[in-house]
Amino acid sequence: MASKYMQIAKEVIKMFGTKGQFGYAAGARNVRAVHAEEGNLRVEFEVEKDQTNQFETLHGGCTAALIDCFTTGALLLTKEARPGVSVDLHITYLTAANIGETLVLNSTVIKQGRSLGFTKAELYRKRDNAMIATGVHTKAFPK
Amino acid sequence: MASKYMQIAKEVIKMFGTKGQFGYAAGARNVRAVHAEEGNLRVEFEVEKDQTNQFETLHGGCTAALIDCFTTGALLLTKEARPGVSVDLHITYLTAANIGETLVLNSTVIKQGRSLGFTKAELYRKRDNAMIATGVHTKAFPK
Amino acid sequence: MASKYMQIAKEVIKMFGTKGQFGYAAGARNVRAVHAEEGNLRVEFEVEKDQTNQFETLHGGCTAALIDCFTTGALLLTKEARPGVSVDLHITYLTAANIGETLVLNSTVIKQGRSLGFTKAELYRKRDNAMIATGVHTKAFPK
Amino acid sequence: MASKYMQIAKEVIKMFGTKGQFGYAAGARNVRAVHAEEGNLRVEFEVEKDQTNQFETLHGGCTAALIDCFTTGALLLTKEARPGVSVDLHITYLTAANIGETLVLNSTVIKQGRSLGFTKAELYRKRDNAMIATGVHTKAFPK
Repeated sequence: MASKYMQIAKEVIKMFGTKGQFGYAAGARNVRAVHAEEGNLRVEFEVEKDQTNQFETLHGGCTAALIDCFTTGALLLTKEARPGVSVDLHITYLTAANIGETLVLNSTVIKQGRSLGFTKAELYRKRDNAMIATGVHTKAFPK
Repeated sequence: MASKYMQIAKEVIKMFGTKGQFGYAAGARNVRAVHAEEGNLRVEFEVEKDQTNQFETLHGGCTAALIDCFTTGALLLTKEARPGVSVDLHITYLTAANIGETLVLNSTVIKQGRSLGFTKAELYRKRDNAMIATGVHTKAFPK
Repeated sequence: MASKYMQIAKEVIKMFGTKGQFGYAAGARNVRAVHAEEGNLRVEFEVEKDQTNQFETLHGGCTAALIDCFTTGALLLTKEARPGVSVDLHITYLTAANIGETLVLNSTVIKQGRSLGFTKAELYRKRDNAMIATGVHTKAFPK
Repeated sequence: MASKYMQIAKEVIKMFGTKGQFGYAAGARNVRAVHAEEGNLRVEFEVEKDQTNQFETLHGGCTAALIDCFTTGALLLTKEARPGVSVDLHITYLTAANIGETLVLNSTVIKQGRSLGFTKAELYRKRDNAMIATGVHTKAFPK
């Protein structure tokens, strides 16, 4: 039996992976949840051609888009369960990821306040844990 | 007669808008260059459905992806003309943009050094100049 | 006769430069206002020994502290005149500044909303306009 | 017997806490190393009056300065042991810290490459682990 949080995670992935939205283009359609608990969501995916740049490595903009999506997903795995609106997104790029590689994206809520939510994410290669990128994403919850 | 920089700008847009790459999905296929000079590139586009989130406003990840692409474009409008690899990307989100609105993305090289390139971008609504987002993007030029 | 905004700027500098506060240690005691208008504050200062690192150049932490202070100063030059609390601060470092050099710090409010204020700053060398650092600073106004 | 890394950590703290440098003003003179291993440095300190703002809480600029210093410290606890020069520093502020509170600053090297070093830091309150701020700091190692 899937846990309550794993069930929410699957709905979140379905929502972000809806055809016609940008999450779909960024690859949310192809991720699978591998871990879900309160304020934490871990997904895996294989890098596909249409997620890459002219060097055929994962596009930095795609990295940013996936971190934007799934840190929001982690916020939906809290009691408040609010997606919020983005205030700032900061991505640090450590190494390139090639087509076909399996990556893990681990997103965590650092703090969920009344008006602001603070999250972070790590994107790493599954076979050797090499860090691809890290991100922090701060969101506001307007009244 | 289009200027030398405008000609490069059009090639850059064609390259990023190539079908099958992530720039295409992010919307690089639909932008038009409106200004190009050394180290500066300004493009315009209308927000389309597949660039949006579940609220039908421009997805923060799409904003990040476009700023990643076109600040790189501005680096290609310099003497060195190197795209580099991303070191960090920071986006600040100020207000939402709706489907159909015309946005202007103005990308500028702040400094182009031997090993690092520094860029910034402003994304604003054309009709009233309301700022949608700002970004800074730092890239490295490995030996 | 100093303008209304120049008068506020001088009070802001006096407040941040009060002995015993961190702004004093960061050098707010030694800056002079050179321009002030609604949402914009420009100050100048000479880099002093106790603002530097072991290489005797302006310490990156001092740069961050001054940008934190004077973007807050720019927020005080608006109708709302609220300092707010920091949400995020992002600094990009472009080149070093030596002891004795005169630097200009230009801080601007990008947008002042009900619950969030967005600012940016440029720190440059006066003699040749070489950019030392740029920053963005987002602040919240809790109810 | 102090470990090799703890000995380096103590020398790093002494260097940053040298009177007349900015690290001294930011409070490096008052921190104590509580843990040191390869690429990781954890220090503790009590918030003092001259590290605060007009609200008598830890100044955001002081937070940034300490994170700048001690992530550099963590880079000195690697085989390469190079301080580097700052490329970008991003701080996220979660809650305020009052005068007298004991804070822990935990700085970690994420990746140490040939030309770039990637670090992160967490600043939290000792008594209840409440997060005060997080930071990422990227440094370059020029040839």
